[in-house]
Amino acid sequence: MSHTTFPSIDPAAHLARVRERSPLIHNITNLVAMNTMANVLLAIGASPAMVHAREEAAEFTAIADALTINIGTVSPHWVEAMIEAAEAARLVGKPWVLDPVAVGATAYRRETGAHLLERLPTVIRGNASEIIALEAGGAGGRGVDSSDPAEAAEQAAVRLARRTGGVVAVTGEVDLVTDGRRLARVHGGHALMPRVTTLGCSLTGVVAAFVAGAEDTFAATVAALACYAAAGGIAGETARGPGSFAVAFLDALHALEGETLGPRLQLEMTDAT
Amino acid sequence: MSHTTFPSIDPAAHLARVRERSPLIHNITNLVAMNTMANVLLAIGASPAMVHAREEAAEFTAIADALTINIGTVSPHWVEAMIEAAEAARLVGKPWVLDPVAVGATAYRRETGAHLLERLPTVIRGNASEIIALEAGGAGGRGVDSSDPAEAAEQAAVRLARRTGGVVAVTGEVDLVTDGRRLARVHGGHALMPRVTTLGCSLTGVVAAFVAGAEDTFAATVAALACYAAAGGIAGETARGPGSFAVAFLDALHALEGETLGPRLQLEMTDAT
Amino acid sequence: MSHTTFPSIDPAAHLARVRERSPLIHNITNLVAMNTMANVLLAIGASPAMVHAREEAAEFTAIADALTINIGTVSPHWVEAMIEAAEAARLVGKPWVLDPVAVGATAYRRETGAHLLERLPTVIRGNASEIIALEAGGAGGRGVDSSDPAEAAEQAAVRLARRTGGVVAVTGEVDLVTDGRRLARVHGGHALMPRVTTLGCSLTGVVAAFVAGAEDTFAATVAALACYAAAGGIAGETARGPGSFAVAFLDALHALEGETLGPRLQLEMTDAT
Repeated sequence: MSHTTFPSIDPAAHLARVRERSPLIHNITNLVAMNTMANVLLAIGASPAMVHAREEAAEFTAIADALTINIGTVSPHWVEAMIEAAEAARLVGKPWVLDPVAVGATAYRRETGAHLLERLPTVIRGNASEIIALEAGGAGGRGVDSSDPAEAAEQAAVRLARRTGGVVAVTGEVDLVTDGRRLARVHGGHALMPRVTTLGCSLTGVVAAFVAGAEDTFAATVAALACYAAAGGIAGETARGPGSFAVAFLDALHALEGETLGPRLQLEMTDAT
Repeated sequence: MSHTTFPSIDPAAHLARVRERSPLIHNITNLVAMNTMANVLLAIGASPAMVHAREEAAEFTAIADALTINIGTVSPHWVEAMIEAAEAARLVGKPWVLDPVAVGATAYRRETGAHLLERLPTVIRGNASEIIALEAGGAGGRGVDSSDPAEAAEQAAVRLARRTGGVVAVTGEVDLVTDGRRLARVHGGHALMPRVTTLGCSLTGVVAAFVAGAEDTFAATVAALACYAAAGGIAGETARGPGSFAVAFLDALHALEGETLGPRLQLEMTDAT
Repeated sequence: MSHTTFPSIDPAAHLARVRERSPLIHNITNLVAMNTMANVLLAIGASPAMVHAREEAAEFTAIADALTINIGTVSPHWVEAMIEAAEAARLVGKPWVLDPVAVGATAYRRETGAHLLERLPTVIRGNASEIIALEAGGAGGRGVDSSDPAEAAEQAAVRLARRTGGVVAVTGEVDLVTDGRRLARVHGGHALMPRVTTLGCSLTGVVAAFVAGAEDTFAATVAALACYAAAGGIAGETARGPGSFAVAFLDALHALEGETLGPRLQLEMTDAT
């Protein structure tokens, strides 16, 4: 397994494209994440919209550039809208990103996760416990916080990517991205990131913003995670705790550019095995 | 068109009245805006309450000093509560403010917007794309971010004000307020304001707080926008990005008073044509 | 009535236990509070989860360490889930904390409050107006902000504690905690705390985190309030308004430890009369 920097992914170029196009990201996300996710998407240069009523979700997907679905606070009406929106995304060829929050915690989540998985997400982003549970179609993990390191989910991620034909990103202290063939590790970030709620959920939106209109979904996902980790590292330099970290993180995302990004990138590439 | 400072609107006096009365503002708003809007209303000196269940919405409107309705994340149960609350407001003579978020984006929003418009809002506050779409009863605008400058909505705003007998405020880089007869422009604010989510939605609450118990709805709306723009200008002086802007903005709203407000006011008045 | 520092409650020891165990707190809370409450729980060292669908709420209660129920933005589906979760908590012996937001404001809230009270909360935390209204089973208070000082609710709190066999906490400028036999007053905090939305709702989560697995619910509740007040005092030293207060408060909660906590504790103990 070679650990060389992969030359063909240029996160700064992906970021510049997001800023130039300002993609409209349609999010059916959880109630905790909505405000933070919208601010994160604005800071990265995208245009967020939260639209979850069944009466309009699929219609909105068709006008958006990408869709995200997060099962953090699911309920029956929302699940119906999620499924219709995911199907609309497939139908019109819009990328969609699944965030299977705490998918192993209850029967309802396992069932919802399985229904959404059938709609073949373009990207799946979760923590290790979630990816393991989603892949196994079964139990695992108590809540929203992962009890496993990302590394533990490597095999599950590769299998899930091959089964869906999409990209799977497992985020943790070191992030892991695979399309079933290639495998990237993204280092960086900061220890305070998991102490601020919904930064993971918000990253799902950033992945969608990078993937929208990208030629290589794998590269775009790696670029999104790399930018996020870099902003986390910058924010961590001045933060005095999770409150000031959250503020500094939005400032850092907003100010992120090639020059500040370059020295912070720590990517490893290898073949998935 | 004369560009003189209009002498009869004194935003500082309106602000002092809000602080003294601490009006109870009943909000049926979107899920993204709730927390920020509550903090903005507390910072300006009002008392916010978010009550949207049909089982209690109209009853609560009767005890509140003003009502706001925002269609940012509508769903059927909420729409029913919105309509009942708007009717209760009219019945008991409480002012209510409509925020037609992304009203042109889907058929469901257009229909909801039309139903609410029939209940004759005391004030309508939106961005240019929303005011144009609401007035035309038709399509326009993709998401929540305006694709038109406020100026482009001037004629639609004047027509809408005349049709409803209320006040229409179009916010953007320069805000525009009209009651169909008078027309005010409010300058100021800061370029980071549209990069912080739901500051527009929150302004709708501030308008309601200023309009509650005011003799002149037009003057109160102008005063609310002027105070908001001044706080934005103050916050922009220390902000390092959208994260620190949001924090500084709440601090500035809370500290706002006649002395800091005065030098920042930039109002123009003219007749609506 | 003796006003001596009660020697047997050691808030620092309670805090250390929360940090060590990182209890999973299941919250069915209001839409305004969700994000702030999750951040507050993370900052104190707990693991928050917001799960409110009837399809999974009771199942989730069984795997959590404690449950909180907050009626701030109730609607019928949520009330059903609240009742089922509260019953599940009783059945499996998990502590649960009731936050009766604005319970006196509407008939729907009074009815919901009464239904939940029948499920005998382990702790009830509210402001004075809410505790008075909940105890009386009747009207009182307009919105979410208390119109009474905590002291005014002392008798209602004692009666409510005796009737339910639980602990009642009335928060305000001085907090009051009683189990019907003992009565504690917690001083401290900061004047900006009521100017930041949902800090009271979030405290309900902190109470649950301290009560989970504690031997003495009364002592754990007092410890939670004492830690919260201390963090408020620390945050107030650097805050320039409610925006920077909210940020500094999360930082202070996260950094709180025995050494910083000790000099700030101001507890009084007496017998309930």
